[in-house]
Amino acid sequence: MTARSWLVLTDGYLSARDAKTAHGVIRYSRDEIAAVIDPEYAGRSLAEVMPQLERDAPIVSTVAEGLAHSPTSLLLGVATPGGWLPDHWRAWINEALEAGLEIANGLHRFLRHDRELVKLARASGATLWDVREPPSNIPLFTGRSIGIPKRTVLTVGSDCSVGKMTVALELARAGHNRGFSTEFVATGQTGIMIAGRGIAVDRVVADFVSGAAETLVCETHPSSDVLMVEGQGSLWHPAYAGVTLSLLHGSAPHVMVLCHQAGRSAIEEPPYTAIPPLPEVIARYEDMAATVRPARVACIALNCSRLSAAEAHAAVQETEEQTGLATGDVFAGDSPRLWSALEAALPERRHSSLLSQ
Amino acid sequence: MTARSWLVLTDGYLSARDAKTAHGVIRYSRDEIAAVIDPEYAGRSLAEVMPQLERDAPIVSTVAEGLAHSPTSLLLGVATPGGWLPDHWRAWINEALEAGLEIANGLHRFLRHDRELVKLARASGATLWDVREPPSNIPLFTGRSIGIPKRTVLTVGSDCSVGKMTVALELARAGHNRGFSTEFVATGQTGIMIAGRGIAVDRVVADFVSGAAETLVCETHPSSDVLMVEGQGSLWHPAYAGVTLSLLHGSAPHVMVLCHQAGRSAIEEPPYTAIPPLPEVIARYEDMAATVRPARVACIALNCSRLSAAEAHAAVQETEEQTGLATGDVFAGDSPRLWSALEAALPERRHSSLLSQ
Repeated sequence: MTARSWLVLTDGYLSARDAKTAHGVIRYSRDEIAAVIDPEYAGRSLAEVMPQLERDAPIVSTVAEGLAHSPTSLLLGVATPGGWLPDHWRAWINEALEAGLEIANGLHRFLRHDRELVKLARASGATLWDVREPPSNIPLFTGRSIGIPKRTVLTVGSDCSVGKMTVALELARAGHNRGFSTEFVATGQTGIMIAGRGIAVDRVVADFVSGAAETLVCETHPSSDVLMVEGQGSLWHPAYAGVTLSLLHGSAPHVMVLCHQAGRSAIEEPPYTAIPPLPEVIARYEDMAATVRPARVACIALNCSRLSAAEAHAAVQETEEQTGLATGDVFAGDSPRLWSALEAALPERRHSSLLSQ
Repeated sequence: MTARSWLVLTDGYLSARDAKTAHGVIRYSRDEIAAVIDPEYAGRSLAEVMPQLERDAPIVSTVAEGLAHSPTSLLLGVATPGGWLPDHWRAWINEALEAGLEIANGLHRFLRHDRELVKLARASGATLWDVREPPSNIPLFTGRSIGIPKRTVLTVGSDCSVGKMTVALELARAGHNRGFSTEFVATGQTGIMIAGRGIAVDRVVADFVSGAAETLVCETHPSSDVLMVEGQGSLWHPAYAGVTLSLLHGSAPHVMVLCHQAGRSAIEEPPYTAIPPLPEVIARYEDMAATVRPARVACIALNCSRLSAAEAHAAVQETEEQTGLATGDVFAGDSPRLWSALEAALPERRHSSLLSQ
């Protein structure tokens, strides 16, 4: 499947944080948004309810209404805490499957383990896409990613949930706006739905995570020049540092962008390990990257979402002084500035031997 | 199952490197060795054929003969490259299953995916133990391992295959000989067969590796004082560094022992990344450990297996001068010396709140 047209199920949560997967796909996907299913907002338009997503589409209240807008795929766009599929979702999914729609599922549980859905999908020829399920044929890391004729950028973080995916997406867009052939490389479930491909690296068996990252950068589009790889975790988060390091080695970046939540000095989950001062964070990422390839942190994406405008301004200035690196908040429109710093740090464009013959 | 009595299948390879799993279990397991099945050496004794394993048992040529020595478990003790179970193995395994023996399998493929074996095991009540298969209920890391009233030691390496498991086992034995209550904590398939328990951490889904390591150290015997945790991989091996780091964080060691192959300056697999000078290797492990708990490298286990005695002596001296740390080769009898250095670096013995009440 090359291009999707999404029917996005948000079911009452369109304006809530629970719908962040839906928000990500609506804002960043290059696929079409056919319609949003949300009885709460039905009849209004997406642009009216969620102007910050900068995209329009009709909001409807049922799958049947949504089908009139010719979608190819149904996106399960809100988390379902403490449960699997609510009954009325199951009815909607059945209806979508009967119409031949692909179902995209980012939940931990997989649709393909649900016999009823598998049976329906088989009958109509529809696809069940369990986005978190890694492919079964991931190879071990070999170093192939070091040789590709592209410039690779990885977003790295001081902690989880500081904006690594969004920063990669915003900078890919900023680079595109400057005329670069950028490609976002997805490593987590929301990113995968946005990109239409990718591997949820945290679901991969440990030995194969760097191989998964390597595969992802090697299988980008031949015409892509600058790869913006979505980082995961943090070297200071003991539950996820292994994934972070494997991704750092496997993707073999030339340049990194450090993502940090302004003011955070410890990870936000047990055992609340300390985050060192940013110059140490930067040095550690550069030291660890150097095993595979020397790479510098080019700029800092400072997430100031919990600060007032004045506080954010001060935090950005302080961070620039502390690190000597360009700093900005992509959530506040600083992506073009950060892209400039990133662009200056990129190595010369590499041409594949094929193109340069 | 608390105590096993092993029937060890080596099938012609008893004296070959292919039987290293068998060798490990024979030399280090506290379980009984009932007999070895090896038609090539049948009629001779284990002590005669493999004196370096420091253990005796009869060598027989069939499972039927082995059963006379009252084993509880059949150990598949040699790798079967390029294949699953040879036909004559299958016949032997069937015979063992019919006699109710547990079958211990360290291969990548699992016995429990083989319908015929599952059926036979079910009929006789025998157990199929796929040693590499991780448990399904591993929790995320929470920091519990930091609080246990034990001293934790982790073997770390500059590369793979430098002796991390053997060093942990030899030092556990050396500590035991000095009167310490040591326990070997297994993280790989051979170690697990030796210890009778453990988790093959490289087979765990990436996010749960540090949780697996934490679980292992928390579930050691209440009376154990010094835990010798088997390390995996190397921070400089891009395919395995993620596992290495997760194990480092999850086990939360107080002290580390660095394992290094004398003379090696790059990892031995693609892309042959450089190993920095040992003082840098030591500093990096200490830096990375400090996220969870400050820990020092106490001594260096130098694997001199490819050197002459004179070369080995020089390599040990050079390493001591370079690092200022006690250095020795456990394969050459230096475990007592290394234990002394390790013992001096251990924190004060911690008593559980239960015991100190």
